[in-house]
Amino acid sequence: MELHDQNTPTVFHPPVNSRPGSSWRSLMIGRPLPTADSGHQTIGKLVGLAVFAADALSSTAYATQEILVILAAAGTASLVNAFPISVAIVVLMAIVILSYEQTVDAYPSGGGAYVVARENLGDLPAQVAGAALLTDYILTVSVSVSSGVAQVVSAFPELFRYRVEIAIGVVILVMVVNLRGVRESGMAFAIPAYLFLAAMLLTVAVGLVRSLFGNLGVVTDPPPLLTTSTTIQLLTPFLLLHAFSSGTSAMTGIEAIANGITAFKEPRSKNAGTVLIWMGGILAILFLGISYLAGVTAAVPSEAETVISQLARTVYSGEGVIYLVTIALTAIILFMAANTAFAGFPRLGAILAKDGFLPRQLTYRGSRLVFSRGIMALGFIASVLIIVFNASVTALIPLYAIGVFMSFTLSQLGMAHRWWKSGHLAPGVESKEKSSVLRYDRHWLIKMVTNSIGAIATGVVTLVFGITKFPDGAWIIVLLIPLMVVWFTSIHHHYEKVAEQLSLKNYHPRPHVHRHRVVVLISGVHAGSLEGLRYAKSLSIDVTAVYVCLDPEEAKTIQAKWNAWGEGVRLVVLDSPYRVLIEPLMDYIKDLGKIRQPDELITVVVPQFIPRHWWNGYLHSQTAFMLRMGLMLQPGVVIVEVPYQVD
Amino acid sequence: MELHDQNTPTVFHPPVNSRPGSSWRSLMIGRPLPTADSGHQTIGKLVGLAVFAADALSSTAYATQEILVILAAAGTASLVNAFPISVAIVVLMAIVILSYEQTVDAYPSGGGAYVVARENLGDLPAQVAGAALLTDYILTVSVSVSSGVAQVVSAFPELFRYRVEIAIGVVILVMVVNLRGVRESGMAFAIPAYLFLAAMLLTVAVGLVRSLFGNLGVVTDPPPLLTTSTTIQLLTPFLLLHAFSSGTSAMTGIEAIANGITAFKEPRSKNAGTVLIWMGGILAILFLGISYLAGVTAAVPSEAETVISQLARTVYSGEGVIYLVTIALTAIILFMAANTAFAGFPRLGAILAKDGFLPRQLTYRGSRLVFSRGIMALGFIASVLIIVFNASVTALIPLYAIGVFMSFTLSQLGMAHRWWKSGHLAPGVESKEKSSVLRYDRHWLIKMVTNSIGAIATGVVTLVFGITKFPDGAWIIVLLIPLMVVWFTSIHHHYEKVAEQLSLKNYHPRPHVHRHRVVVLISGVHAGSLEGLRYAKSLSIDVTAVYVCLDPEEAKTIQAKWNAWGEGVRLVVLDSPYRVLIEPLMDYIKDLGKIRQPDELITVVVPQFIPRHWWNGYLHSQTAFMLRMGLMLQPGVVIVEVPYQVD
Repeated sequence: MELHDQNTPTVFHPPVNSRPGSSWRSLMIGRPLPTADSGHQTIGKLVGLAVFAADALSSTAYATQEILVILAAAGTASLVNAFPISVAIVVLMAIVILSYEQTVDAYPSGGGAYVVARENLGDLPAQVAGAALLTDYILTVSVSVSSGVAQVVSAFPELFRYRVEIAIGVVILVMVVNLRGVRESGMAFAIPAYLFLAAMLLTVAVGLVRSLFGNLGVVTDPPPLLTTSTTIQLLTPFLLLHAFSSGTSAMTGIEAIANGITAFKEPRSKNAGTVLIWMGGILAILFLGISYLAGVTAAVPSEAETVISQLARTVYSGEGVIYLVTIALTAIILFMAANTAFAGFPRLGAILAKDGFLPRQLTYRGSRLVFSRGIMALGFIASVLIIVFNASVTALIPLYAIGVFMSFTLSQLGMAHRWWKSGHLAPGVESKEKSSVLRYDRHWLIKMVTNSIGAIATGVVTLVFGITKFPDGAWIIVLLIPLMVVWFTSIHHHYEKVAEQLSLKNYHPRPHVHRHRVVVLISGVHAGSLEGLRYAKSLSIDVTAVYVCLDPEEAKTIQAKWNAWGEGVRLVVLDSPYRVLIEPLMDYIKDLGKIRQPDELITVVVPQFIPRHWWNGYLHSQTAFMLRMGLMLQPGVVIVEVPYQVD
Repeated sequence: MELHDQNTPTVFHPPVNSRPGSSWRSLMIGRPLPTADSGHQTIGKLVGLAVFAADALSSTAYATQEILVILAAAGTASLVNAFPISVAIVVLMAIVILSYEQTVDAYPSGGGAYVVARENLGDLPAQVAGAALLTDYILTVSVSVSSGVAQVVSAFPELFRYRVEIAIGVVILVMVVNLRGVRESGMAFAIPAYLFLAAMLLTVAVGLVRSLFGNLGVVTDPPPLLTTSTTIQLLTPFLLLHAFSSGTSAMTGIEAIANGITAFKEPRSKNAGTVLIWMGGILAILFLGISYLAGVTAAVPSEAETVISQLARTVYSGEGVIYLVTIALTAIILFMAANTAFAGFPRLGAILAKDGFLPRQLTYRGSRLVFSRGIMALGFIASVLIIVFNASVTALIPLYAIGVFMSFTLSQLGMAHRWWKSGHLAPGVESKEKSSVLRYDRHWLIKMVTNSIGAIATGVVTLVFGITKFPDGAWIIVLLIPLMVVWFTSIHHHYEKVAEQLSLKNYHPRPHVHRHRVVVLISGVHAGSLEGLRYAKSLSIDVTAVYVCLDPEEAKTIQAKWNAWGEGVRLVVLDSPYRVLIEPLMDYIKDLGKIRQPDELITVVVPQFIPRHWWNGYLHSQTAFMLRMGLMLQPGVVIVEVPYQVD
C-alpha cells in the first residue's frame, strides 16, 4: 500500500471484471451501467407535452364510460346526464390547474404533493400524501393496462377471455423495459402521443361535424349494457355525485407535470406552467367532445366494447382502417400511461426511503441505474390487482383517483400555508427551505386564496368520492392509507432508534477483548472438523469441541476417534433426545454466556462443508446457517465459519 | 466440567426446554417424542390381514372398471371380455404369490424388491427397483385417493366438480395424520378392513345368488360411457392386452407383505406367508366376482359413477342405506391404501438415503419419530399428480403398476439368482449376507424355477404394459425411472467423493495457523463497525478496514471520521462504479489471497447489524449473508460475523 495523505482516502479501483450480473440477466435487461453514465437531458415544451400527455390524456379513454356505468343504474334515459357532469369535472379541472400553476412556479426543482406537504405541513400529512400517491401509481398501472386491453378486445372480441393474461403480459413487458432503464427520449414518446392526439381530435371533429349535419346516427348493434344495478333506480343526487366521482378519473395525471419539472428546459417553471395550461385545454376539449358524442350516438357502457370503440366505429361508419388505427393508438397511449407510473412509483419510493419511511434498499439503483426493486414491486402488485379484479376497469375505478384527490388536497393546503408564511416574511428576506426558496410575495393573499379554493374543492371531491364509492371498493383505500402511514411511521421509528444506537455521540469504547473462549462444533471426526480445530486453536488456548449426539452408539466411536485426533482438546457430547441439532447447542452456549467475563468473548467455530458445485448444497445439512440464525440474538457470541472445500 | 474417563464421552443432558418445535406445530402434529419412545409392536395373522388388506384389496375398487374402459373402445358388446381377462390376471396373481412365498421365507427381516435386488443383483438393479417402487408409492396415493373420491362422487354427484379439491383435502389429511406418526395400531385398521371385506363379499354373494335366480337385472339409468376412442375399433389382440395391462392394477399391494414381515408375530415368515395366501384367495374371489357381476349387470365404465357403485345399487335394488355403507367403506379402504403408501415411501426413501442414493436428510426422523421430509415430499408430489390428471383414475392408470411389475420382476430375478447361489453352497455352510442368511437348500432347483417363472411372467407383463400404455402416459414412467437412476448414481458418487476427501486415512495435518491477516468491512463509522474493529484487533495486529464507496463524497466523510475513531487502523476505500457491494470486496480479497503465506489465514470480519425483532430484518441489507455466499468458495478465507444487537 502506498503512502497516502490522511484526508484523501486510498481508493482501490477494481478491474473491469468486477461488473456485476450474470449473462441471462444481461440478455434480459442489458449490460450494467456505471454511475458516471447517469446524465440528464432536458426537453422543450412540445416534447414535454408529449411526455406528460400519456398519463393525463389517456384517462379520456375511460372517464366518460365510467360516468355512464353509474348513470345506467337509473336507466338508459339518464345517460344524457353524462355531458353536464363532464362540464362540472372540467370546471374542477380548471381550478386544480390554476392552483397547480402556483406550485410549478414555487417549486422549480419538483413539487410533488409529498414534497410540498412535507415542507409546509409536516411529517404526517407528507406520509399521507406519500401513501396516497403510491397507491395511485399502482392503480394507474392496473387501470391503464386494463383499459388498453379493453380497447384491443373491443376490436378483436375473440380475445375477451384472455384479457387478464394479455394485461399481465403487458405489465411484464413494461416492467422489463423499465428495468432496462428508459432514457427520457422525447421522440419515443412524442410520436405516439401526437398521433393519438391527432386521431382523437379527428374523431371528435368528424363526429361533431356529422352530428351538426344530422347524419351521425347512433351506435349500431350496441354491446350488452353494463350497469351496477339489476333494477332501475331513481336518478338521485347521490347517483349523480357517484357518477361525478367516477368521472374525476379524467383528472389523474395532471399532477405529473408538477412532479417532473426538472425534465424541462430552462426557464423550467415557466415552460412547465405553459405545458400545464396546454394540456388542460386539450384534456377539456377531448373529454367534453367524447362525452357529448357518447350522448348523441347513444353509446352504452359495456365490458365487451369500450365507449371509444363504439364512438369510433359510429363516427367512421364501420370498422375500417381508420377505426383500427384509432383503437390501436388509444391502447398504446394507455400502455404508455402505465409506463409513466413505472417511472414515478420507484422515484417516489426512493424519496420516501431516503427520508427513512420505507426500506433503505429502495434508494439503491440497480445495474441499469434504475430503482429496480421499486419497479419490480410495482409490477407485482399491479398484476395482483389485475388478476383479482379480472382486468375490469369498472371494478378497479372505485379504488382509483381517491389517492390523487387526497394528494391534490394536501398539496394545495401546503401551498396555501406556504403563501401565508410568505406573506409574513419581511420583503427581501429569504428563507431557504429543503427544496425551495421562500421569499415575500406581494400577491401572497390572492395566491393563498387560489390554493385554498383548490384545496377545498378537491377536499370536498375526496369526501364525495370516499362516501359514494365506499361500498364498491373505496373502503380498501380508506383502510389502506392509514395502515401504510402506520407502517411508514414504524419504519421511521426503527431507523431513528438504530441511528441513535449506532451513533458515536454517546459511544464509550468497550474494554478490549483479552480472551476468547472458543467452542468448535464437530459433526464427526474428519478432515473438515480438524480444519475447524486448527483455526480454533489459533484463536485461543481455551478450546472446547462440542458434538451433538443423536445416537449413543455413535458418540462412543466419536470419542474414541477424538482421543486419537483431537490434539488434547476437550470434547463435550450434548445429548439430544429429540433428534435436533440446534437447540442443545443453543442451550449450551447460553449457559457458557452466563459465566462470561466482560473482557472475554465466546467464539463459535463452525466448520462448514462447501461442495464444489452449489447445486449439491441440498445434499448437506445447513447446520451453520441454522445456528447463525439462532445465535445472532445472543450477546457476546461471535460465529466463525471455517469453510472446507471439496475439489 | 468434571473429570471423565477418556473412553466414556462427557454427555451433557439438556434441560427440558430444549425440546424443539413451536406451539402451532405442536397443535398440528403433536408434541415432540423422544427417541427412547420408539418401540415396536407385533401383530398376529388376523390383524396382519387387515393391516395389509387396504393396499391389496382396495385395488378391486378400480381394476374391473379400468379393464372396461379399454374394452369400451371396441363397443359395448366387447365388455363381456372383462371376465376372461380377469381370470388371466388371477392366474398371473397366483404365480406371483407363489413366487413371493419364497421371498417371505428367505427374508424374515423384510424382503422388499430393493433389498432383494441389492443383495442378489447389485447396485444398478437395486436402484431401478428403488426408483420403480418410489414412483409407484406416489401413484398409489394419487390413484387410491382419486378412486376413493370417485366412489363418494358416485353417491353424491353434486360433488363431482369439487373432486380435485376433495382429493387434495384427503391427501393433506392423510399427510398430517402421518406427520403425527401412526402407531401401528392393529384395531384402527382391522375394523374398517373387515367391514369392507364383509360388505364386498356380501355384495358379490347377493349378486351371484340373485343372478342365479335370474332376478338381478341390469344397471338402470347407467351413467355416460367413458371410452378412449370416439370411433368403434376392432377387438384386436392389442386391445385385449391393453385391457389386461389396465386390469393388472388389481395386483398392486401384494408386495406390501414381503416388505412388512417384521410387523408380524413370530414365526414371522410363516405367519406372513399364511396371510399372503389368504389375501391372494380373497383378492381373487372379490376381483372375479366383481368382474363377473359387472358383465351380468351390464355395468359401464364412467367418470361420473364407478362400477362398484353401479353394482351395489343394482344388487341392492336402489341407493338405500346398505348401498351407502358399501360405498363409504370402499372409499375408506381406498384412503387407507393411500395411508399405507405414506408409511412405505418415507421408509424406502430412508433406506435409499442410508445407502447414499438419496439426500442424507431423509434418514432423520422428525419430532414425532417419523421421516417427516419423505412424508411431505410424497404428499406434495401426489397432490401435483392429482391436479395435473384432474383426479381421474382412468388418466392416472397408465402410469400406475408399471413400477410394481418392474420391481416384481427384479425381485423374482434376484430370488432366482439367490437359489442358484444356494445350490452351489456346500450343505451346512452358511453365508451371512447383509440382511439374510444364505445356506444350502436341497429344493433350490425347484425354487429357482418357481421364481424364474414369476420373473418371466411379470417381465413379459411389464413389457406388454410399457408398449400398450406407452402413448397414454406410461412413457412418463419409462423416461422417469432411468432419470431417477442417473440422479441416484450422481448422489452416490458425490457422497463417495466427499467421504474420501474427508477421510483421515490420507490426512496430513496442515501447518498450524501462525498469523491472521484480518480485513474488517465497514459500512460507515458507527458503534457497530467499531465493535467489529474491536474483535478484529483481538485476532491480529495486521488489520485493514475496507469500505466500498458508492458515492465519492461520502468516502471523504468516512475517511475523516475513521481518522478520529479508527484507532490507527488502515482504511482502504474500494471504488464501485456499478453500485454493487459484493463484487469489489471479492476482488480485493482474492488479490490478498494471492500473496497469502501457507501459515497465514485471511479472516474477514463482518459486523452484522441484528435488529431486535427478526421481522425488521428486511429493513437492512444482508451484506454479510451475500458475502458469505460469495467467499465460501475462496480457499483460505474465513468469515467472522460479529453481531451488533440493538435493544
